[in-house]
Amino acid sequence: MGQDISRRRFVASALTGAAISSLSSGLRGFAGDVLRPGGESNSTTDSEVPLTDNPSWQDQGVLNLAKSPYAKLHSVPVRAVTIGPGFWAERRNANVTRSIPTMHDLLESHGRMNNFRRLAGKSDAPQIGKYYSDSDVYKWTEAASFAMQSEPLPQLRGTVESIIEDVCAAQKPNGYLNTYYVDDRAAQSMTPVAQEVGHELYNIGHMLQGAIAFYRATGERKMLDAGIRFVNDFLMPDYGPAPKKPIISGHPEIEMALVELYRLTGDKRQLDLAGYILQGDARITVPQTTSIYLFSGTPFTSRMRVEGHAVRCMYACCGATDYYLETGDATYWKTLNTLWDDMTASKMYVTGGVGARAQGEAFGDPYELPNARAYAESCAAVGNFMWNWRMLAATGDGKFTDVLERALYNGLNSGMSLDGTLYCYRNLLAYDPSNSEPIRNAWYETICCPPNVERTFSSLPGYFYSTSSDGIYLHLFGNSELRWRLESGTPLRITQQTDYPWGGDVDITVSPSEPGEFTVYLRIPGWTRSASVTVNGKPMDGAQPGAYFSLRRRWSSGDAIHLHMDMTPQALEASPYVAEDLGRVAIQRGPLVYCLEQIDQPDGVALGDLSLALGAKDDAGFQSEFKSDLLGGVAVLRHGGASLQPSSSRDTLYPRSSSGPLYSPYQAGAHGSNRGSAPLTFIPYYAWANRQPSAMEVWTPVTEA
Amino acid sequence: MGQDISRRRFVASALTGAAISSLSSGLRGFAGDVLRPGGESNSTTDSEVPLTDNPSWQDQGVLNLAKSPYAKLHSVPVRAVTIGPGFWAERRNANVTRSIPTMHDLLESHGRMNNFRRLAGKSDAPQIGKYYSDSDVYKWTEAASFAMQSEPLPQLRGTVESIIEDVCAAQKPNGYLNTYYVDDRAAQSMTPVAQEVGHELYNIGHMLQGAIAFYRATGERKMLDAGIRFVNDFLMPDYGPAPKKPIISGHPEIEMALVELYRLTGDKRQLDLAGYILQGDARITVPQTTSIYLFSGTPFTSRMRVEGHAVRCMYACCGATDYYLETGDATYWKTLNTLWDDMTASKMYVTGGVGARAQGEAFGDPYELPNARAYAESCAAVGNFMWNWRMLAATGDGKFTDVLERALYNGLNSGMSLDGTLYCYRNLLAYDPSNSEPIRNAWYETICCPPNVERTFSSLPGYFYSTSSDGIYLHLFGNSELRWRLESGTPLRITQQTDYPWGGDVDITVSPSEPGEFTVYLRIPGWTRSASVTVNGKPMDGAQPGAYFSLRRRWSSGDAIHLHMDMTPQALEASPYVAEDLGRVAIQRGPLVYCLEQIDQPDGVALGDLSLALGAKDDAGFQSEFKSDLLGGVAVLRHGGASLQPSSSRDTLYPRSSSGPLYSPYQAGAHGSNRGSAPLTFIPYYAWANRQPSAMEVWTPVTEA
Repeated sequence: MGQDISRRRFVASALTGAAISSLSSGLRGFAGDVLRPGGESNSTTDSEVPLTDNPSWQDQGVLNLAKSPYAKLHSVPVRAVTIGPGFWAERRNANVTRSIPTMHDLLESHGRMNNFRRLAGKSDAPQIGKYYSDSDVYKWTEAASFAMQSEPLPQLRGTVESIIEDVCAAQKPNGYLNTYYVDDRAAQSMTPVAQEVGHELYNIGHMLQGAIAFYRATGERKMLDAGIRFVNDFLMPDYGPAPKKPIISGHPEIEMALVELYRLTGDKRQLDLAGYILQGDARITVPQTTSIYLFSGTPFTSRMRVEGHAVRCMYACCGATDYYLETGDATYWKTLNTLWDDMTASKMYVTGGVGARAQGEAFGDPYELPNARAYAESCAAVGNFMWNWRMLAATGDGKFTDVLERALYNGLNSGMSLDGTLYCYRNLLAYDPSNSEPIRNAWYETICCPPNVERTFSSLPGYFYSTSSDGIYLHLFGNSELRWRLESGTPLRITQQTDYPWGGDVDITVSPSEPGEFTVYLRIPGWTRSASVTVNGKPMDGAQPGAYFSLRRRWSSGDAIHLHMDMTPQALEASPYVAEDLGRVAIQRGPLVYCLEQIDQPDGVALGDLSLALGAKDDAGFQSEFKSDLLGGVAVLRHGGASLQPSSSRDTLYPRSSSGPLYSPYQAGAHGSNRGSAPLTFIPYYAWANRQPSAMEVWTPVTEA
Repeated sequence: MGQDISRRRFVASALTGAAISSLSSGLRGFAGDVLRPGGESNSTTDSEVPLTDNPSWQDQGVLNLAKSPYAKLHSVPVRAVTIGPGFWAERRNANVTRSIPTMHDLLESHGRMNNFRRLAGKSDAPQIGKYYSDSDVYKWTEAASFAMQSEPLPQLRGTVESIIEDVCAAQKPNGYLNTYYVDDRAAQSMTPVAQEVGHELYNIGHMLQGAIAFYRATGERKMLDAGIRFVNDFLMPDYGPAPKKPIISGHPEIEMALVELYRLTGDKRQLDLAGYILQGDARITVPQTTSIYLFSGTPFTSRMRVEGHAVRCMYACCGATDYYLETGDATYWKTLNTLWDDMTASKMYVTGGVGARAQGEAFGDPYELPNARAYAESCAAVGNFMWNWRMLAATGDGKFTDVLERALYNGLNSGMSLDGTLYCYRNLLAYDPSNSEPIRNAWYETICCPPNVERTFSSLPGYFYSTSSDGIYLHLFGNSELRWRLESGTPLRITQQTDYPWGGDVDITVSPSEPGEFTVYLRIPGWTRSASVTVNGKPMDGAQPGAYFSLRRRWSSGDAIHLHMDMTPQALEASPYVAEDLGRVAIQRGPLVYCLEQIDQPDGVALGDLSLALGAKDDAGFQSEFKSDLLGGVAVLRHGGASLQPSSSRDTLYPRSSSGPLYSPYQAGAHGSNRGSAPLTFIPYYAWANRQPSAMEVWTPVTEA
């Protein structure tokens, strides 16, 4: 498994954050720079640590797959893509200008940073928050650092540097770093029980990811060195295969962080440690139910289904795919595909959310996809997104991009309010405000989701494209400019002009610095019924929904691709085995899943009494209208519907005093015939719950027209 | 609230168990006997405790409502009704000959009785089981005692008496009795926290119910006296309204036990204590979510819905109705009806099961009634049954009998296997053996349900009839003989001959010892479309489904009533707000809800691919066939159906490798048109899971024929 990867020594680098160039400063070749740690590192170890012949820090992508032998696709740096005005610019703006700053203040006011300062003697506040609270700070640091990969943001950088100071000051001389397992709790640290439930390695996984993102933003490696010390100085000498002390992951996360660290340092021990953790250690035995819940403790390659805690499961799959990308281990690849098939065939919401059950925040049985009782944690959608990115990198297969995009635009996007200050923990597919607590909140005691969504949005430019040995892949649509290079070294600029996701036309210019033959792999989404492509006005045959359309030719600067995707709204039905979706449809237009909110429907009818009147035609007959003044600008969909009964308007999903009995003799067609007509207005799901509390429904009953 | 209730002193009685007469020994008048404690009571208090002018012990019903001022109906003793061969005789036989004896042995082998012996120095086994384990022994004692109310069962009585010895020997001199809160845990006893979660009063509630049932079986009051000591000597002096220490019920149960004790002793302090507990004590404050879960801690009369832990909620409703029956408190009555309406309009399964959620074993939101994920604990169905019995006693309204019968025949009856040795804790409405643990088990560490079902079946003869000031109510149908008396004192014999629930004809003879005018209130079930009644062959107009048909006339010995109920199988649909039941029907015939088990369906089709082909006719067209060799003898129902696709037969609810995608474009009518025909065979729900593990479904998709 795997092969020799050439290494060289990671020696001092003079690069600093000040060296960050703005996107307009042009393209760079592979630097292969010799790096060295930032100036003030308080490293207690030899500062020379192994390094593979990486691209330079500023040229590394969200994942640094440049040297990953089983990655077909290779990331482009976040800074290589500038997102122009449009859908994601709006979301990015909310993220960078509102969400990241306000979340910082909330983390601060809830004592999360003081936990570190306390250990450095800079605060006398008590320890506060759960054993996983450190990870919130790290994940926020990662989110901020990805934002800094796109632009300098000096004030934010100052804040992050100050946090890094505090974090590093809290590290023990032996490399251990955790603000919870200290003082009276120190004796429990790294015991098997604490590993199972204490999130120590989970925290460090996020610490490493934050450190790497900051390093890739600034070239500063103080936090990175602290992370390396934890791994190399604290963890490796004492923990691992016998005769060392055993490890159980508990909450998978460290695995993908270790592989990414390996990608940075070239230290194969870090990769091996990830593999050891993914395999589990038979010396720590846990009951089967615990192993299912933890999605760790037994060999990853023995898994047959996605199960247990959904975030744990998704993170484990991310780590295992990362491990595969470096090692090519066929057993891992088989398992990963088995799990992906299981998830997408029976356990994923139409929104790309996963994890049906509140109990254990877990995957349910096959086809167990309740709507009002959905869990679909934002973090799990992030995990689904990240996992599919890795599967895509391994294959270039558009089926992974389809899932990635579904989660991104819907079940992940819904996790942050339009203004960037409120967050969903659960992402329900039906909602009755009279039954439920507020669904969007500024703060949760378990604040995992908000910074997780933040880091995804911050890093999003890095997901638009990948390079391959023979060209470039275009994954995501949106106004944007890529300035990067082909793997041949030829600088390349690509622009996209589009109203996506509101419109299905994309104008793409491909501008290599010099003419040359290569392939543009143009994604044709699986959701479209048909797509057409022209190059410099000439129709190109063969675009297939769900696949990348391979455009191999000699490209010259300014070559123009036009992509047209049929965005006719579609009514989707679920497998008849999904109990709650029988007789219902979900509406999708382009990548966006739609929903009904009570507030948009006619007065006098409860949402639960409405149905959609559909005929047998292929075209379901929706009217699409872009409303620039609604919800930050959305295309609403209108369609004829039916209402079961007139009832006074109420802000509940179902009328509280039903006119009918709970059970009554079946009458064929009675529901349809008793209904009056009612015009329905659908909004994109991601934008729900951004006005007053209002009942919401994704899966709408059908009345056959 | 309430009125003076005359009392006299509870003085010595010479009656013993040996004095129990068999049913054949004839009828008795109101005895008004003077009772005294059993011989060997180790009472530390004055043995003379207050007593109301009750019927004698052997004339008291399941509830002793003889003197309850707000009870319109009054119980008949269990022994007054002899159940003849037929449906309930079979279940009673399994209960008495298999379930009760084997459950005794299991309780013994799992150390539940040794917990008591240990405290008496008769066992050195360690304490075992949870803090509520005492209640299992008490509930089993109650089940056995109800059985002894029908027949002497000397061997069983010996066993019970031995247990009573051990229980009483474990009681502390101050009256306290609990095998868990002893030794190191004694300091926690009766603290507010322990009351919330420790079930101390819950245990004593069951102890009192067991003691009362044994007393009513035998006249022996050793255990009863021990219970009175707990209440009067331990609890009352120190716990109650300020300045005493406060009480929170934690798990309601003590309330109904205290009211029943009051009915026995006439000691109004016991009724007042029940009222105090139902009201909650503001000195113990619990968070709102806890109060909802516990269904205690806030005034019962402030409740607006059934919510929280379903068994707690049902038991609280039982206790509150008992309190109402004694006090006539209109606030209670209003609340009880509000809760009943809430439950039956939106939160009760078609099986009469309640409590949709596994998490918190709780009621869900309105219309939240998942099938495969149903909880519907057997205990909650027992609670629903018991509550409706009390509501019926208050009103004589057949709507309560309909719910009572629905729970009894279906969601409660399903809780015990046909052979009486295996039990359901959850009573699912859809089941996939490949997803789930075995659904029927001989033992659960929390063994609340089996003895709860046992005590219901043991006491069932006591639910067939009630008396009222003007006559007699016939509630339940089944071959049986009542030997009792009207409230006027006139001895009365009533026989029923019927194949119920397999047939809808009931021949009833009414034989007062002397002719006289009174009313026979004949229940016409709400589930029947029509019913006809004759008296001595003469048609009687006015029988309305869902109501008691009032037959007032001069009755003479041998007068014959014939009741015919239309038992045509019906397809029921649920409110369209029940998400999982949309497009599905449940089949009911008479009081029995039916289901599909995979094992009865054609080979080669997975249950999840089957649908029922229904036309628009009123008569759904089922063929009913009694199969004496199947499941102890059941009427199966056959009907044409359709199968979505041919698939190899698998013992799963849904095919594991679906041929279709999870989400696909909606096609009107496609599900129907793609189906082939398949004959379906339904069995009664209560009998499910009595063969090999097999997928099961109550709510079947409909294909309109």
